[in-house]
Amino acid sequence: MSTDSETQSESDAREQLIDLAAEFYDQFADGEVPTMSIPTRTKSNIEYDEDMDVWVYGDRKSTRSAKTVSGAQKLLKATYVIDFLAQQLEEDRSSTLRELYYLSESFDHEEAQFNSQDESNQLIEDLEIVSDVRREEFHMRPEESGATVMGPLLIREQTRRGEREIHCQEDVGEGGYQIPNDPDTIEFLDNDADFALCVETGGMRDRLVENGFDEEHNCIVVHLKGQPARATRRLTKRLRDELGLPVTVFTDGDPWSYRIYGSVAYGSIKSAHLSEYLATPDAQFIGIQPADIVEYDLPTDPLSDSDVNALESELEDPRFQTDYWREQIELQLDIDKKAEQQSLASRGLDFVTDTYLPERLDAMDVI
Amino acid sequence: MSTDSETQSESDAREQLIDLAAEFYDQFADGEVPTMSIPTRTKSNIEYDEDMDVWVYGDRKSTRSAKTVSGAQKLLKATYVIDFLAQQLEEDRSSTLRELYYLSESFDHEEAQFNSQDESNQLIEDLEIVSDVRREEFHMRPEESGATVMGPLLIREQTRRGEREIHCQEDVGEGGYQIPNDPDTIEFLDNDADFALCVETGGMRDRLVENGFDEEHNCIVVHLKGQPARATRRLTKRLRDELGLPVTVFTDGDPWSYRIYGSVAYGSIKSAHLSEYLATPDAQFIGIQPADIVEYDLPTDPLSDSDVNALESELEDPRFQTDYWREQIELQLDIDKKAEQQSLASRGLDFVTDTYLPERLDAMDVI
Repeated sequence: MSTDSETQSESDAREQLIDLAAEFYDQFADGEVPTMSIPTRTKSNIEYDEDMDVWVYGDRKSTRSAKTVSGAQKLLKATYVIDFLAQQLEEDRSSTLRELYYLSESFDHEEAQFNSQDESNQLIEDLEIVSDVRREEFHMRPEESGATVMGPLLIREQTRRGEREIHCQEDVGEGGYQIPNDPDTIEFLDNDADFALCVETGGMRDRLVENGFDEEHNCIVVHLKGQPARATRRLTKRLRDELGLPVTVFTDGDPWSYRIYGSVAYGSIKSAHLSEYLATPDAQFIGIQPADIVEYDLPTDPLSDSDVNALESELEDPRFQTDYWREQIELQLDIDKKAEQQSLASRGLDFVTDTYLPERLDAMDVI
Repeated sequence: MSTDSETQSESDAREQLIDLAAEFYDQFADGEVPTMSIPTRTKSNIEYDEDMDVWVYGDRKSTRSAKTVSGAQKLLKATYVIDFLAQQLEEDRSSTLRELYYLSESFDHEEAQFNSQDESNQLIEDLEIVSDVRREEFHMRPEESGATVMGPLLIREQTRRGEREIHCQEDVGEGGYQIPNDPDTIEFLDNDADFALCVETGGMRDRLVENGFDEEHNCIVVHLKGQPARATRRLTKRLRDELGLPVTVFTDGDPWSYRIYGSVAYGSIKSAHLSEYLATPDAQFIGIQPADIVEYDLPTDPLSDSDVNALESELEDPRFQTDYWREQIELQLDIDKKAEQQSLASRGLDFVTDTYLPERLDAMDVI
């Protein structure tokens, strides 16, 4: 995104926010009790959109009304936060969710101050949903940071200190390029990549980089760092949408890692209002598969009770309703084992890059 | 460190390892039962070195002898690992601790295979201590990754893909420069810095960078990411020793954060054999101090039982035996409160960079 469109998106975000506050004002002027209507954010109002292959909110709405004291307080807090965000955008500044919580102590109306960070986090999510503007466009930064990228990709990042052109192999150290909090400040200038490989663990990320996998296979290695931050998922989606790159997700072979894959591919319940922005529905899972545990006789650990429960709940999860996943999950319950991606090292340090990944990528028609 | 000296350190490491194995051989040749002697690694054998201001091992030694089956197995495992490491160094490769554990499955002698990763981790630490070579020099990578740096510092990193010259403000995005797993591959080329500021949380690191604190005060901002990885502590020490920069540590105001400061400044019990390499004894604590909670009336949480226990054990900890720390810890127990660094936002987003840090740095004679 260029500087101009950034400025455009900032001013759009500000307008959307001010429109929200203006609605309260209009309701007052019309002699109505102010209200704010938002989709009900409970599990029962989250639907799997079969066409888009992602989670979205259903039709049920909740209304916050100033009729009650607690409702009025919520709307008061919302107006204070809108005021703060509008000013933040005007000054081209940003803040973290935690700072917002603490900052509310300086609000002159004591009733507008937050009682807990859960409350302020929730309000920001509500505002995201109602205004259709993302937290990043409000310039609210996360606490968790994005991960790193290594691969044949030239980007231009719009920083507060000016533009930076960075090649994600030639201009970075072994640690790679650090994804900024808002990856929409990145523009893709050029690339020589055939696909993206998102990797769960740092140990495996380092293995791929040491073995030169990104160079040999023209591959962009994205480190997920466990459950990926929003910034990491957003960047991955943009690699798919803007560069047309196949996206593959390489994790451990256990139910929690399948959820990591699920959150990259289909979004999560918590951020269902952002699925369109964050999810990469045709991302492909590249292992460790339960079938690999059997085929390669990998070192394993037995499934714990919570692993078994998680696998069983995945059998009911709409994201995993395919023959492939049912077969893999049932096989895993049957063999009662899980394996980490680094367990491939039991076949030598090069097995993953010389044999495992090339064979999988070939079978998936990615290379 | 230049390429030449790197190669020197690699060949030194290999020699030290092979010398260890040679000792077993000599013992066999002399008709002795092979043994390996290492410092006892229990809390009772860890001493606070008053001169160096860091933790070190005491004089007590334990002996691993092939006289017993379990002792013989330990020495067998050690020789297999020495063989693996020597080969790894010869091929200029590296691996993670977890890979080593899995890789042992490919050892031809079943008795040499590890039963758990704790066992292989422990052996690597033993070898570090006995050979006086650090894990990084064995080319063993950690799972946890180093954090990031932003500031007026030009470095040259020796990567597998050649040298990279990177200025840690001008050549990086907002995310900063990612510290590599072994920061001794970095050479400091030039800098315009007056001091280093190590920051516990990502939210505060981002605040300092957004507010341009590094530019205004010629400061190198090092993100600790909570309890810092070895790579981060090593880099911090090198900023102090090689560039002569004062090092300050900025954390939350609770006992766990004081331990973060303690591990930067004085080392930790777990890595007492590395204190000389990792610890920065004259690193200064720059808050949040319990006195700040009172003076600035910061938003707080009450101390939990485990907070109180941790504070009380710090009162006994040799690292905190100064008037300053006794006073602060007793004050904190008295007010029964703790505060996060981001709570300074209750006085506005610029308070930390315009007022708090400049006042503290001035009082500490750093600026």
